[in-house]
Parts: sequence; C-alpha cells; structure tokens
Amino acid sequence: MGLDTDLDKIPKHLLKTDDPVFEFNKQIIDATHEYCVSYKPNIAFYEALGPKGWESLQKTLDYLPTDCFTIADAKRGDIGNTSALYAKAFFERMNFDSITVAPYMGEDSVKPFLEFSGKWVILLVHTSNSGSRDFQLLESNDGHFLFQHVIFASQQWATPDQMMYVVGATHAEKIGAIRALAPEHFFLVPGVGAQGGDLGAVSKAGLNSQCGLLVNSSRAIIYASSKEDFAEVARREAMKTQKEMEVYLQHL
Amino acid sequence: MGLDTDLDKIPKHLLKTDDPVFEFNKQIIDATHEYCVSYKPNIAFYEALGPKGWESLQKTLDYLPTDCFTIADAKRGDIGNTSALYAKAFFERMNFDSITVAPYMGEDSVKPFLEFSGKWVILLVHTSNSGSRDFQLLESNDGHFLFQHVIFASQQWATPDQMMYVVGATHAEKIGAIRALAPEHFFLVPGVGAQGGDLGAVSKAGLNSQCGLLVNSSRAIIYASSKEDFAEVARREAMKTQKEMEVYLQHL
Repeated sequence: MGLDTDLDKIPKHLLKTDDPVFEFNKQIIDATHEYCVSYKPNIAFYEALGPKGWESLQKTLDYLPTDCFTIADAKRGDIGNTSALYAKAFFERMNFDSITVAPYMGEDSVKPFLEFSGKWVILLVHTSNSGSRDFQLLESNDGHFLFQHVIFASQQWATPDQMMYVVGATHAEKIGAIRALAPEHFFLVPGVGAQGGDLGAVSKAGLNSQCGLLVNSSRAIIYASSKEDFAEVARREAMKTQKEMEVYLQHL
Repeated sequence: MGLDTDLDKIPKHLLKTDDPVFEFNKQIIDATHEYCVSYKPNIAFYEALGPKGWESLQKTLDYLPTDCFTIADAKRGDIGNTSALYAKAFFERMNFDSITVAPYMGEDSVKPFLEFSGKWVILLVHTSNSGSRDFQLLESNDGHFLFQHVIFASQQWATPDQMMYVVGATHAEKIGAIRALAPEHFFLVPGVGAQGGDLGAVSKAGLNSQCGLLVNSSRAIIYASSKEDFAEVARREAMKTQKEMEVYLQHL
C-alpha cells in the first residue's frame, strides 16, 4: 500500500492533531495491515513538508509492524559517492528494507545501494506513467527497448535476491514479455487503482512460482473516504484488493 | 561551486559548533562568493543527516547572496502528481532557483518543474560518472544515442530560458557535438576537479556567445584544506578556477 499522505487530501478533522501525517498513517496502518504485505511511502509527500515531514516519515516507519516489507519510493540515483549517501540515509538512518532507484546514470549510481546486506534495490524499468513511452521505449539498433537493456545490464550487477524491478500495471500487455526476461525477480507494480491498471491482467501475466509480484495501490485505498470513517473504508478497499489477489494466487 | 558538505570531511574544529554543516557552508560562502556565480548543494549530503540536515540546507540557502544562482542537485523525477510535490518542495518551500531532474520517466515527470515562473529545470543528459556509458550511450535504430534523444524530446517541452542540460566535463570530446544540438542552452558541467575533467577543453568546446556554461567544482575547492585555514585555501582555489575561466571567456 502506498502511503502518499497529502495534507490537502486527508480528512479535515486530523489537521487539528500535532502530527496529522503520522496520525493519518497510523490509523491507515492499524486498519489495513492485516491485508498488506508491504507499505510504500512516496518520499515526495514527506519532503514537501520540510524537516517536519521527515519526522513524520520516521515515526511512520517506526510504527509499521516488523513483518511488513518497507519501500522508500524515492527514485534516487547519483554518482557513486553520492548514491552511497542516499543509501545510508534510507537503509541505515531510516531503516527501510528497500528503495526505488532510477537507472539513467548507470552501474556506479546503483551499486552503492547493493552493498547493504538484507536490503533491496527496486530499479525503475517500465514505469506506469504516460512519459514512460518517451525514452523507455526507445528501440536500440539491436532491436531491444531501453527498458529491456536496463534489465539485461542490471542482471549483471545483482541477483534476484537483491533487486526487484518497477513495472507499471498500465503496461499489462508487456508484463508477460518482461517476466520472460526476468523469471525470478519480484516486480513492484504500481498503477493499479487511480492510474487504471487491472489487477487480473497483471497477475495473469506477471505471477511466477514464488508469486513474484508486489502490487501497489495508493490513492484508491487511502483516499477512498475523506470523512471520519476513512480508516474503516480504507480497510474495506484493502480487503477487497487482497481478496481479489488471493483468487489469482490460488493458480500458483 | 558544489556544497557537498560531509561531516567526515570538514575540519574537526567545526564539529564543536551547533550546526557544523551550516558553519562550514557559511565560511566557504563568505570566502568564495566573489569568485562564484552559483552554488550547488548536492541534496544527498543533507538528506543523509535527517531532519537536521534539511535545516542546515535551508539556513545555507537563506544565507547565500541574492545575486547567486542556486541549484538543488537533487536528481528527482517521478510521475506527474508526485514530481509536482518535489517542485513545490524545492522551488516554493526552499526557494531554489533550479533543480536537477532525471529524464528516465519522460515528459510528465519533468513538466511539473517547468510550471514555476522564473525557475529552471537542469535535465540530466550525459553525466560525468563512469556509469554514464551504460544507458546514455545506447544507440537507437535511427543512429542517435539516448542522451541525444533526451535533448530532442526535451526541446519540445521547454525553451532555453527554462531548461539547462547536465553535461559531464569528463566527456569533453562530446561537448562540441552536444553544443551543436543545443546552441542556446546553458550546460551545467560537473566533473572538473576531483573527477578529472579539464576546464580548458570544456570551455573550448562548450562556450556560446552568452557563455552558456556553468562549470561546477566541489571537492577540489571545499576540501582543498582540512585544517582551520580551509576557507582561505578554498578562496585561493576558487580564485584560481575563476581566473582560468576568465581567460577562456575573453575569446567570446
């Protein structure tokens, strides 16, 4: 579940609390964790609030049940010595299990994130947004798309036990071909819910024998109600998604 | 000048102050601003310090002379509604003049940064690091590299008054060809100094009639001395670079 917590969208009665962002997250986590394997705060929502936003983020992370896999959706990436600092921030200081990383700057921008034992890099491959067509679908002179080259190259950098790939649910028609290139990797699949991706199509094309999918929904669950019943309604939406996923998982 | 301020590298006597990062930046700025047109904090160095790091960053930004151009070297980029939050954080909350943006996610990940009047996007084109060869030099079936496609596409999104390009000094042999594709754009050129790029070669290939170059040096100036004389030594190094640049600028 994406914790994309936005002061303009959370129920108004929470704004009176000391830390509305954490209060919202806490109630959402309490209501939904039974149906979620993982929580994914998108870091932009916290960074936009300045130092206080980073405190709300840390409190949220500390509050999450320890059996939840945590994803810093940060899309970082810089030259080697600088990526190492981002890795330290998210893996050591904040203790996230994983971070999303942008591949444009290549191997030395990704490798520092791989040097932390038990942590994961989730590399952007084919994202869910409309702009994913601009460069990710550039066809190279050997007939492959850029996003396929990202898979080929990154498989030389890390095992499927250290790296996952971001593959948007809005590209359900390509997920089968991506699965063929990376049979063992987990895919983080955003774009179900508000962005229009279809969970059934994604599951049919993307499941492997270990499941292999972390399907994310953010806005469709956490903002399902903007009233005082928001947590209860989020719980129902999370359950609905989990029950649907359960049916697809029975085919494993 | 890059303000890549690292607690492990700044002079030890500063660690006794309340805010060593700001104290270091303040003294560096006082000593060098006469020779600098722009300051570029790399955000990773501040993010690695948690909420306190963001406070040091804001204090630094507020301290900079108003005639300095400020660059948030953040390499952000996300789906549209999320990039809009990053833009708000850096342009409104922190009041940076510009931000570096990664292009992998395409048009809707870049456009929200362009909606702020008087602010600049500095798009990664061909970065200074070794990994820049992994994807940026991927040749498409029409004979162009990925980094050239980033230039072609982004020229449809913004004018040279809203957008600059990151071109590494370590690729001096390619800067002339990149200048031919983007005759009016400013280039932010990292990689002079610690990364080994040559200011003369960069200037020869990259200058246009408006100058068109923002050449960055970080470690070679700010860490030229690790003793109490660090600011004075940084001033001498900054002056040396400025004097060298002045010679190249006379050929305009």
